[in-house]
Amino acid sequence: MTDQATDHAPSAVVLLSGGLDSATVLAIARAQGFACHALSFDYSQRHGVELAAARRVATHLGAASHRIARLDVQSLGLFAGSALTGYAPVPKDRPPDQMSAGIPVTYVPARNTVFLSYALALAEVLSAGDIFLGVNAVDYSGYPDCRPQYLAAFQAMANLATKAGVEGRSLQIHAPLLDWTKVQIIQKGLELGVDYSLTHSCYDPAPDGQACGHCDACLLRQAAFQALGRHDPALSQGRPKAW
Amino acid sequence: MTDQATDHAPSAVVLLSGGLDSATVLAIARAQGFACHALSFDYSQRHGVELAAARRVATHLGAASHRIARLDVQSLGLFAGSALTGYAPVPKDRPPDQMSAGIPVTYVPARNTVFLSYALALAEVLSAGDIFLGVNAVDYSGYPDCRPQYLAAFQAMANLATKAGVEGRSLQIHAPLLDWTKVQIIQKGLELGVDYSLTHSCYDPAPDGQACGHCDACLLRQAAFQALGRHDPALSQGRPKAW
Repeated sequence: MTDQATDHAPSAVVLLSGGLDSATVLAIARAQGFACHALSFDYSQRHGVELAAARRVATHLGAASHRIARLDVQSLGLFAGSALTGYAPVPKDRPPDQMSAGIPVTYVPARNTVFLSYALALAEVLSAGDIFLGVNAVDYSGYPDCRPQYLAAFQAMANLATKAGVEGRSLQIHAPLLDWTKVQIIQKGLELGVDYSLTHSCYDPAPDGQACGHCDACLLRQAAFQALGRHDPALSQGRPKAW
Repeated sequence: MTDQATDHAPSAVVLLSGGLDSATVLAIARAQGFACHALSFDYSQRHGVELAAARRVATHLGAASHRIARLDVQSLGLFAGSALTGYAPVPKDRPPDQMSAGIPVTYVPARNTVFLSYALALAEVLSAGDIFLGVNAVDYSGYPDCRPQYLAAFQAMANLATKAGVEGRSLQIHAPLLDWTKVQIIQKGLELGVDYSLTHSCYDPAPDGQACGHCDACLLRQAAFQALGRHDPALSQGRPKAW
């Protein structure tokens, strides 16, 4: 369903993993008045359950469209060597100071570059001048492609890459969570009405989609909800198993 | 088959379309001593016959491996609006001065960025520090993502994007044909033993794979072969139809 306001809103492409961060970013982009075209990726990630979460979140937050791009990565041996694609164990119950030591085993080679390149192609097709993604400070100590200088370099490259750039319609990469803590992210999301029970962050979910509660991603969000005096709704006992 | 020399050669990723330019680049990278991992893309392009050419060329020029990545672009509406993906007619029999007027209808949004992003991911997996691609002067008057400043920006971004970059192993993008004419490209390729009858450049081939002889790509290579006193072997009458 579209309305007058949506018809006249500028379009943005929003990378949506189905996790807590990207859900918050989608809410932020919506609140800024963008018609949001959500883009998710199926790259044979261990936690394919996050794509179901992405679908729920896109609907919940009123995305103008939602695309899931299948990346043919396993047959190519791309993205190998990451715990997220099943080649290495996911670390459990690590204290926060160990989480940020070096490049994490969940690092996926050039992942954000591949994702942003698709977003760039889609932005050009949709005449969208804005791309949103949910990288943040907690990540960028470890993932090279979550750092501000990387994002600035991608934006500079993108503006040389496209017809829009050549014609003077510049493209902007927005990473509104870049300097925020998890607590700040969740606070903002709650303010904007994000239902975090719909999101999925766990690196190692059970086959029924339940978060493990012990990987870095689970521990980080649990701690943030606790700091806000709340329980992480993704870990609710009363949650139906087969969603 | 591998030999001692190949085992110790540094690895490079080579973008291989199956056309004249990328075949020449593969030969150049091989001549520079690289173990070449060729990478082609199946993006529902009208001339899927080029992938068969890419396979022939990879074998002919002794690539260490050859991968074809299927890009899920049609269902996403990515790469729409280009003559190469079937949405607009391919111009025929244009004089050279009209070919370079503005951004061509064969422009595919963000294509080189998507291709180079995959190459970057593969380079990191293979610990390759070099990526080769066959963009050249004839193209870069019209395609924004064939210009030297674009390639420099991609390289700068790539070195911020990856674990290798962070650890000080820099990645280099090589576009050896950048300032060459088609004549110079073919001369170099012939010198290196490239069999151009195996390549495919046509934007609008017949169902049996025969080049049309009238699109920009066909005309440009024909003219270059003629300038060298040769016939374009991709247009040979005696060539079997069903290859």
